[in-house]
Amino acid sequence: MPIVTGPIVLVSNRGPVSFGVGADGELSGRRGGGGLVSGLAPLVAGSDTTWYAAALGDGDRAAATEGVIETDDLRVRTLAIDADIQRQAYDVVCNATLWFLHHGLYDLARRPRFDGRWQKAWSAYRRFNEIFADTLAAEAPANARVLVQDYHLALLGPLLSRRRPDVRSVHFSHTPFAPPHLIRVMPDQAATELLEGMAGHGACGFHSERWASDFRASCREVLGREPPTFVSPLAPDPADLRGVANGPASREAFETLDARLGDRRLILRVDRMELSKNILRGFWAYDAMLESRPDLRGTVEFLALGYPSREGLPEYLSYRQEVATVADVVNRRWGKEDWQPITLDLADDFPSSVAALRRYDVLFVNPIRDGLNLVALEGPLVNERDGVLVVSREAGVWDQVRSASIAVNPYDIEAQARALAGALEASGPERTSQARALRDIAEARGPGEWLADQLAQIG
Amino acid sequence: MPIVTGPIVLVSNRGPVSFGVGADGELSGRRGGGGLVSGLAPLVAGSDTTWYAAALGDGDRAAATEGVIETDDLRVRTLAIDADIQRQAYDVVCNATLWFLHHGLYDLARRPRFDGRWQKAWSAYRRFNEIFADTLAAEAPANARVLVQDYHLALLGPLLSRRRPDVRSVHFSHTPFAPPHLIRVMPDQAATELLEGMAGHGACGFHSERWASDFRASCREVLGREPPTFVSPLAPDPADLRGVANGPASREAFETLDARLGDRRLILRVDRMELSKNILRGFWAYDAMLESRPDLRGTVEFLALGYPSREGLPEYLSYRQEVATVADVVNRRWGKEDWQPITLDLADDFPSSVAALRRYDVLFVNPIRDGLNLVALEGPLVNERDGVLVVSREAGVWDQVRSASIAVNPYDIEAQARALAGALEASGPERTSQARALRDIAEARGPGEWLADQLAQIG
Repeated sequence: MPIVTGPIVLVSNRGPVSFGVGADGELSGRRGGGGLVSGLAPLVAGSDTTWYAAALGDGDRAAATEGVIETDDLRVRTLAIDADIQRQAYDVVCNATLWFLHHGLYDLARRPRFDGRWQKAWSAYRRFNEIFADTLAAEAPANARVLVQDYHLALLGPLLSRRRPDVRSVHFSHTPFAPPHLIRVMPDQAATELLEGMAGHGACGFHSERWASDFRASCREVLGREPPTFVSPLAPDPADLRGVANGPASREAFETLDARLGDRRLILRVDRMELSKNILRGFWAYDAMLESRPDLRGTVEFLALGYPSREGLPEYLSYRQEVATVADVVNRRWGKEDWQPITLDLADDFPSSVAALRRYDVLFVNPIRDGLNLVALEGPLVNERDGVLVVSREAGVWDQVRSASIAVNPYDIEAQARALAGALEASGPERTSQARALRDIAEARGPGEWLADQLAQIG
Repeated sequence: MPIVTGPIVLVSNRGPVSFGVGADGELSGRRGGGGLVSGLAPLVAGSDTTWYAAALGDGDRAAATEGVIETDDLRVRTLAIDADIQRQAYDVVCNATLWFLHHGLYDLARRPRFDGRWQKAWSAYRRFNEIFADTLAAEAPANARVLVQDYHLALLGPLLSRRRPDVRSVHFSHTPFAPPHLIRVMPDQAATELLEGMAGHGACGFHSERWASDFRASCREVLGREPPTFVSPLAPDPADLRGVANGPASREAFETLDARLGDRRLILRVDRMELSKNILRGFWAYDAMLESRPDLRGTVEFLALGYPSREGLPEYLSYRQEVATVADVVNRRWGKEDWQPITLDLADDFPSSVAALRRYDVLFVNPIRDGLNLVALEGPLVNERDGVLVVSREAGVWDQVRSASIAVNPYDIEAQARALAGALEASGPERTSQARALRDIAEARGPGEWLADQLAQIG
């Protein structure tokens, strides 16, 4: 049952459906993975909602020529954008600039390099937003409410309302936001344009008050004013997740994993292979724990599910190699014939991830900066062993889970080693009560509340 | 004539004199270079002031056994500290941690690594400060006023006043200060200890209100309170500098440089080979200028004086190599038989640097973050060509020179290319009036005012 009334337009770079063209020339749609999509799609299915997204593959581009497509209870409209504009906007501006700034990932002595090539990419980013604005101006229903998702389309709201004053929009950031020290890194005119663009929406939403506060501080410094913000963390859909957990693929994966582990306890992390996720220090912390606690050797396995992404950027390729190297170093250092301390699994397999979430004793979420981190809420919903959550205080989700988890400074390897050992040694009653508290926190909100918060900002 | 009355103790890691042991076994002292020393030593010469510093070389260590040494109108006391403690405190904590944090130089996805080795280094840093406190407690005159210089001795004030309640101290930072986003990177206990240590001085001084504000913000977040701060930028000593300029070594260097340049205009930078100085982007900006302005090719030379330092840290060695590589790329790209676009000179030769300051048409100071940058004030004092100052807004000195210089965002290569071209093309009257204004700014204060500001904080 849809919770949404009135015409709604969702806009994001990546859509909820991937289109393919069959041998018969027919289009077929496949629901994508990812927290945003899995949480949101069921809510808007059947409502007067259309989802606009960039065409990513050949199937999406074929779909774009057909306009709005009804599929799986969703109305989806893909936009075929000039490949060079898309590549520059997405790779150079979104992934290599905005993502890096919002997460504080630059090695500032060397990067970024705001040169002439970057200025062209910024023009492409502006054009990318204009193309969405033009299409929506032509197609959006009267008085539609437009929910813009993420930094790929930060300029969209005001571009659209200039063309269609009847349409109102909000912007929601799934990332942290660059504080003044980092927004000052951008070329001045681009920083102003970015913040003016976001401020031109009815309101800007974030998963955590900290990101909202960083955004307002950057706006104060650059624009001299504070645009309206709101805070509304996304939440997983418990039924959806438990449905996956009970599906045959996930059950089989669970049996396999559980048989391999036997009596061993499991420290689990589930991430994209992403610089902000702090996978290297996670392994170093585990290594430090094994060094200082010989009694724990052989009794525990660290399973790191880290599916690769953005491998078009050299930073990601090299990070993946570093992660594999460190895992190897730790395994060679401590491993025995019958025990491999770390298993690094790069497959992108959601049912297997959910299976692992059922089985963990410790869920390790240690990003250096993270918009929310949905895994920290998904884990407690399906975990069956009263697993302990060790969580970075730099993740947005820490706001919600701090009372029922072990918080860590993600840069402090020694502190993380102690936290992992402490989590493994937590008493049964303590684990049970924390796990129950975490489940309550994770169930307190669903994606419906998050969606409703955005719509409420428009009125 | 000394401006100082009453017993004063200056404390810094590097002292004003380097001691050597001659063939005859006799100690001899040699005045060191560097802004702090050259500005301060003449002021305190002859007053009741003793300068405490760590023994750095073998001569300094020999001097340490003799206690306070009178030399060149200065009383100097070197402290011989266990080599391992000194190395860990200086290399690991001061140079590889505090300097990096205060300047925002970390590639945070990978570094820092706060592991067990770092915890040992932090203990060494604490011990380093305690050794100074113990020595000063035994030796400082009654009611001495202690002026602690820089982050090497941030814990000293309260350690000393616990031992000697009659002694009062201020702490002066010659660097920027880590804002809350970066102070949070340190292990919590060490961050608290650092900030408590600084806050335990009578007051903490900075070159710019921005650094004082970052310090207070970090204290608010970590300590829950704001210690007293003051702002007092160091200033060069015009007479001292002009004395060097008129000396034979500098005059000869000037003739050689001027003859080589002929009619060519000179863009000059003078730095340590230091990641925060942004030397790479400076070359890229010059490269972009030459690309977009064929008419300027052959008419200008970029002289980069960048004496190497801290080469014990791999980051500095590799940065030096990158700088040399980029200079080479630009020279190969644009150079002709009779024109080398960039000259990179790694000699540490103060008279030659001063000679170059006389000759520049554009002084380029583009750090990504810099406590003050004294060169931006020294240049205008001796320059003879109404040279234009192109200055990063992220340097502390920008507070003072903004009305008489061309400000740049140091990350924006295109903007810096435009600024360099604009500086070369500024009209004669504009250059003359800006150069006069800069000279007035640089002469408005001297090191005496800076020293007096610190003493005034003690009362």
